[in-house]
Amino acid sequence: MTQFINSKENLVTQAIDGLLATSGKSLTRLDGYPHIKVVYRTDWDKSKVALISGGGSGHEPAHAGFVGRGMLTAAVCGEVFASPSVDAVLAGILAVTGDAGCLLIVKNYTGDRLNFGLAVERARALGRKVEMVVVDDDIALPDLPQARGLAGTLFVHKIAGAAAEAGQSLEKVTEVARTVIAGTASIGMSLDTCTVPGSIKEDRIAAGNAELGLGIHGEAGVEQVAFNNAAAAMQMVLEKLAPHFGKGPVVALLNNLGATTPLEMAVLANELADARAAGPVEFIIGPSLLMTSLDMHGFSVSVMTADNQQLAALQEPVALSTWPGVQPICEVQVERLPDGLAPVEPIASEDASTRATISTICDLLESSESRLNELDAKSGDGDTGSTLATAARSLRQGLDRMPLADLTQLMPALGNELSQTMGGSSGVILAIFFNATGDACARGLPIEKALAEGLARVSQVGGAVVGDRTMIDALQPALEALPDGIDKSAAAARTGADKTATIRRAKAGRAAYVPEENLFGHNDPGAEAVALVFEKLAAGN
Amino acid sequence: MTQFINSKENLVTQAIDGLLATSGKSLTRLDGYPHIKVVYRTDWDKSKVALISGGGSGHEPAHAGFVGRGMLTAAVCGEVFASPSVDAVLAGILAVTGDAGCLLIVKNYTGDRLNFGLAVERARALGRKVEMVVVDDDIALPDLPQARGLAGTLFVHKIAGAAAEAGQSLEKVTEVARTVIAGTASIGMSLDTCTVPGSIKEDRIAAGNAELGLGIHGEAGVEQVAFNNAAAAMQMVLEKLAPHFGKGPVVALLNNLGATTPLEMAVLANELADARAAGPVEFIIGPSLLMTSLDMHGFSVSVMTADNQQLAALQEPVALSTWPGVQPICEVQVERLPDGLAPVEPIASEDASTRATISTICDLLESSESRLNELDAKSGDGDTGSTLATAARSLRQGLDRMPLADLTQLMPALGNELSQTMGGSSGVILAIFFNATGDACARGLPIEKALAEGLARVSQVGGAVVGDRTMIDALQPALEALPDGIDKSAAAARTGADKTATIRRAKAGRAAYVPEENLFGHNDPGAEAVALVFEKLAAGN
Repeated sequence: MTQFINSKENLVTQAIDGLLATSGKSLTRLDGYPHIKVVYRTDWDKSKVALISGGGSGHEPAHAGFVGRGMLTAAVCGEVFASPSVDAVLAGILAVTGDAGCLLIVKNYTGDRLNFGLAVERARALGRKVEMVVVDDDIALPDLPQARGLAGTLFVHKIAGAAAEAGQSLEKVTEVARTVIAGTASIGMSLDTCTVPGSIKEDRIAAGNAELGLGIHGEAGVEQVAFNNAAAAMQMVLEKLAPHFGKGPVVALLNNLGATTPLEMAVLANELADARAAGPVEFIIGPSLLMTSLDMHGFSVSVMTADNQQLAALQEPVALSTWPGVQPICEVQVERLPDGLAPVEPIASEDASTRATISTICDLLESSESRLNELDAKSGDGDTGSTLATAARSLRQGLDRMPLADLTQLMPALGNELSQTMGGSSGVILAIFFNATGDACARGLPIEKALAEGLARVSQVGGAVVGDRTMIDALQPALEALPDGIDKSAAAARTGADKTATIRRAKAGRAAYVPEENLFGHNDPGAEAVALVFEKLAAGN
Repeated sequence: MTQFINSKENLVTQAIDGLLATSGKSLTRLDGYPHIKVVYRTDWDKSKVALISGGGSGHEPAHAGFVGRGMLTAAVCGEVFASPSVDAVLAGILAVTGDAGCLLIVKNYTGDRLNFGLAVERARALGRKVEMVVVDDDIALPDLPQARGLAGTLFVHKIAGAAAEAGQSLEKVTEVARTVIAGTASIGMSLDTCTVPGSIKEDRIAAGNAELGLGIHGEAGVEQVAFNNAAAAMQMVLEKLAPHFGKGPVVALLNNLGATTPLEMAVLANELADARAAGPVEFIIGPSLLMTSLDMHGFSVSVMTADNQQLAALQEPVALSTWPGVQPICEVQVERLPDGLAPVEPIASEDASTRATISTICDLLESSESRLNELDAKSGDGDTGSTLATAARSLRQGLDRMPLADLTQLMPALGNELSQTMGGSSGVILAIFFNATGDACARGLPIEKALAEGLARVSQVGGAVVGDRTMIDALQPALEALPDGIDKSAAAARTGADKTATIRRAKAGRAAYVPEENLFGHNDPGAEAVALVFEKLAAGN
């Protein structure tokens, strides 16, 4: 599978350099590529206990992304899914450990335990004070004493990080970390496996199935389950976690395993929040990319029961954009809809001339139905005539409700009527036209200028101008000529409409997607309708 | 394709509720589900210009994820890839607009322009001061006048957001937004299409190809190109953007289109930083999920040339975890490797008794090679004997370099020798054993106690205890009996080793993955080697 990398061999070193180059000089690394990949804080003065984590890569932002004040001092990165070497870990320890000592936070995988463990021995032999804790938050495999380390590791980074930042001793920071580990449980679910660079993706999860209790290295989950929906998935995960809830408020960390969309993660967050009613989960971290498994389409939930001190440590602000913070899960806040959404029903009024004009236009549109449909069939789905005729019939029926004597009210009323009966883009465009015209009337403009302003808004909002093969090609010249009388106006509309037959390429509206040979020689149906209307009005004058 | 949703129909409303439930009450929404989906700030007092954005969903965190102090006041969300209705936009405007007015930031899609545009007209008719800007940062389609709105929209949110927060007038905020839009250009590349909920995924990009100049709604890119690697991909994108660089520092926004891994995004960031040498790109936002296209495996780069005021506005801190901040792109900081990585060469010294003991053990291991290999073949890859024999031969050759007269030095020297010649887990485990033993000797413990402490560290680091079918099953009883003499010790080792043949399930090491019927009746080869060594030492006593 194609990926945005250059080669498997330099993938991790280039990714680390990418992190460093965009870190605003907050991060540095040791000069030990390719074998020694150690990232640490540039603002580190060794005056406090150093926190080092790491392990195989492919879990970004873990761990290098969490190096910064209040979390990790350093991260020792291995190749994808492979432990860093003893030398790399030792280099990390030696680079950042001062008199206060250093705590290694290691996820429970044999390779990591051994390499970090031997580095501890070698660092001690060199006189460094070093402790090591092993995170084993995975609850998927109750029978194996060797539970894996998963995203619950983040709780350790954050809480021990706050303790170290506060100047606690190595003994105290280690104890803090051990207490967090003892109270942390994690489990994940995925709909697909991950793609290891340079390897063929394993296709072991059938469509409609999910793996529950997976690791973060592409190893198979403990069980394959039928996947119903997000609600059932979250319920399954929470049922596994519930026996691990202690007394007190539970903090849940909702982790995106790599390629789950933010939209899905938000749905899962909603399920987690809904489930809160039945349990003690009061706080949430995420949803966020925290401890990923390359491009795995899955999520994990880690929980810990936090006392006040642990909660305060979790909530301590850090300047890392990778850390999403802790939020209390809350009821969804809902506000009443504002007034003014329903258009104010205009007060009907009578004006014989206006009624006659509208009726004339309605007659014209109804009688032009098939002619306009035929024109539209050249460039669209052949329904322009029917759409306009339907709108005309509906408008005629509504005439008695219209404020015919008051143009300022009539214009938006026409717009609302048309947008409701026509639907689609045409309805909205005409609604904008009439509403903006009414707005201009309200500001005291004469009707000719108000109509021109309405058209300007349509052009601005819809993005179409003269020459784009739309109704604007007839409407704009017609309105420009209107001050000179309806005859001139009608002639201008006709000229504009006929010119659309010579436009080879539509630039707006649906006709933009039609091959030009289908367009040439035929008027745009919208422009034609406008021309017909103005010609009818001129004839009746 | 299976997704973490409940149904297509309630996907967006549930995702919005998930966002709200985890927002710490910083967000609220209008009571208009399912048609009206408007999210806004709970801390909003209408005293300043309101900023509203929105559009179809599927682009999370855009736009609801950017609602907060210093960015958006409200987001109006449509269904996936569909514009919200006029009523929804109007509801949003009416909910948050005070006397200072409101600016709508709309991406350039016909549906969005029309629905937001008509809502503007209706809000104006209700007396609200409303302006609208249309973002058209896409440069993929130079021929079409209707450029699409892409992730460059985030520049507008942030800079206009800072202006509004600073109390600028609607006219000024609108002008600020227009200036940003005019100076912003975006283009994206993807290796795959996106999966629209409820639709079959389109499979139009062949393996090894990429689409350049794609939209964010699954529409095809302007061209399919051969995909070589991350470097070439970033270069292609930057070449398209370069003509849009203005005078002054360029800020690049590196956007994850949905399912690209953080590891890949970091590699792309590295390429962008490398390319800086050749161009004026001085600042970076991301890499981060900002304006996604569901699960698209792609990225986009948006650039704007920023003056000092715009840069300051971009850098203004906001409390949104979705906003990654702006960083100057910097050289990768590199520090010298610390001293102490190379093990100190011990000063050779002579001790006849120690030399004899080690030689005896080496003889034994060399002569037991095939026996131990046969045992290992039952549960592993049959090389335990060869591994130990090779280490023994190497150790014998190195005896003259060893500090034989000084146990405190000898132990770590043995550990380092073995970890180098044996490799793998066994080498590391023995290195930990001898290093920790040496550390205990240095603290003045007698050798029997020091050896026990070494074993305790192995057990702690490796996680194996007696009964797990490892060499510990023989070594631990042997060391416990050692104070009573080597004969007792050898007998205890033999009992322990033989007992491993009755352990049906290994809990640590590679044998943990072997079916129990293969294990039963055969001693663990590591434990057997330990027993043989102690028996030999006892016999020679």
